[in-house]
Amino acid sequence: MTGSPSIVFCAPAAARPEPWIGELSSLMPDARIEVWSEDARAADYAIVWTPPDAFYASQPKLKAVFNLGAGVDGLLRSTALPAGLPLIRLEDAGMAPLMVEYVLHAVLRHVRAFDRMETDRRERRWAPRWPSDRALHPIGIMGSGALGRPVAEALVAHGFPVSLWSRSVKEVDGARSYPGLETLPAFLAATRVLVCLLPLTAETEDIIDRQALDRLMPDAYVINVARGRHLVADDLLDAIRDGKVAGATLDVFREEPLPSAHPFWDEPRITITPHCSAMTQRSATLRQIADKIARLERDEPVSGIVDRQRGY
Amino acid sequence: MTGSPSIVFCAPAAARPEPWIGELSSLMPDARIEVWSEDARAADYAIVWTPPDAFYASQPKLKAVFNLGAGVDGLLRSTALPAGLPLIRLEDAGMAPLMVEYVLHAVLRHVRAFDRMETDRRERRWAPRWPSDRALHPIGIMGSGALGRPVAEALVAHGFPVSLWSRSVKEVDGARSYPGLETLPAFLAATRVLVCLLPLTAETEDIIDRQALDRLMPDAYVINVARGRHLVADDLLDAIRDGKVAGATLDVFREEPLPSAHPFWDEPRITITPHCSAMTQRSATLRQIADKIARLERDEPVSGIVDRQRGY
Repeated sequence: MTGSPSIVFCAPAAARPEPWIGELSSLMPDARIEVWSEDARAADYAIVWTPPDAFYASQPKLKAVFNLGAGVDGLLRSTALPAGLPLIRLEDAGMAPLMVEYVLHAVLRHVRAFDRMETDRRERRWAPRWPSDRALHPIGIMGSGALGRPVAEALVAHGFPVSLWSRSVKEVDGARSYPGLETLPAFLAATRVLVCLLPLTAETEDIIDRQALDRLMPDAYVINVARGRHLVADDLLDAIRDGKVAGATLDVFREEPLPSAHPFWDEPRITITPHCSAMTQRSATLRQIADKIARLERDEPVSGIVDRQRGY
Repeated sequence: MTGSPSIVFCAPAAARPEPWIGELSSLMPDARIEVWSEDARAADYAIVWTPPDAFYASQPKLKAVFNLGAGVDGLLRSTALPAGLPLIRLEDAGMAPLMVEYVLHAVLRHVRAFDRMETDRRERRWAPRWPSDRALHPIGIMGSGALGRPVAEALVAHGFPVSLWSRSVKEVDGARSYPGLETLPAFLAATRVLVCLLPLTAETEDIIDRQALDRLMPDAYVINVARGRHLVADDLLDAIRDGKVAGATLDVFREEPLPSAHPFWDEPRITITPHCSAMTQRSATLRQIADKIARLERDEPVSGIVDRQRGY
């Protein structure tokens, strides 16, 4: 235990490190905080977003790595990541309300036909559309973590039938819980609007494939706000062209930015947003990390440590 | 008091009377129910939506008229409406959740820039947009009736600062109340997103004019889901072109369908929907009316009787 911990910050240049460093310095005035380069000094803690493989070799003294996001699948794919190094994922830091807003907006836009009204408006057409009953649009949420649960609660509050599929039984008032892989077919069969909020692991990669889509109710709709690798792109496109799936709202893609030649762009029934459903909120994130560093320095336990075996 | 009341139903042909008559008949199997024509027999109660002036003269025995909507400004404008005839407005009959959905969708679409993302998507452009703080978008709701209050509650629940302007003090937890005409300037000055849910009366007609728009916070946004006559169309268009107002979502218009030559169609910053924010829900509406007829037949009081002096 030292009096003043040292911290190294490593994120792509596009993330503009200055305001992060400035805000963290005022939260931890005694800490030594540096932006990472090959020449940076060895630090006690790292705060990272998609660090290069060279990062780990250059920082041999790290006690823990804080990821600037909830999903750590990118970090775990790096072979340079030292085996015993504790990874700490970002827990809800103002992201849950943003995710609730995104999913609720996408659900209402589809169920209330606001997307078709926007097309009508551009074509200067006045065409009233009677809203269909919420009961006809059961929503199935895959994943019941820090984001899946509040999304489920919000949709229940707005009167939608909601199911929640996850590894183990997770109770949300008013939602039906489908625990474990063996309940997946029944969960899908009871779902018209599918919302993916799963962590990306070996078990969940490609989980939304043609077989899964075929199990959904007719005129299904897909909202993916987790990772692009959860979804098999060609299977979704086929299901939309076949009429099995009415459309999709996608915020995440295997490659981001979505390449300009990707066939998703050619399918107007796919709404595309640029990975903005729930962006990391700087102040809340840095308060959470500063608090956890202080606890670790006092040898106290912290939440959010990644189980590498489980993958999140 | 008679054993079995008689009812006449008068709505435009586009409303398709058959399912209404069928459902009302099963709710009130002893009642005599007729679709209105000049030859229809005199009935005890009328259920109407925009009846022609000739309707009233042809129905001299009415004890009460039920309107198939919350707004009765159209009925009150008819000079053929007999002076003493009780008018009963539709109270929330499944419309409040629909209105909450509509306003929440419109607010999120603007505040989260989903409208600009839709344009980006059509133009195949990947352009992340950082969400701005909810605290920067205080929402001012005009009208605190059966629709205004639940809309205010939902926006408070989603973390927005909310003000409520109405005739008298109306308390909604977490929202600030601005009662009376004299508080209107202060209410507008504290509002960035203005939502109109007022009844249309002589006092509220043209209330959203250039003076009101100029009092709003910079980069304001207007959502009108009440009546087209609340808003001065040219003043809104000028305020948008001047940059005082960023845009608007309008569901109601002085003339509906909105005429194809109306300048609103030429302003892309105005989202237009075809008066569908909260459509009358048949089953809930007919249960409410059947219950009120039964109460009136037992000489019991009913709610929703229009105060013609007040105008709603």
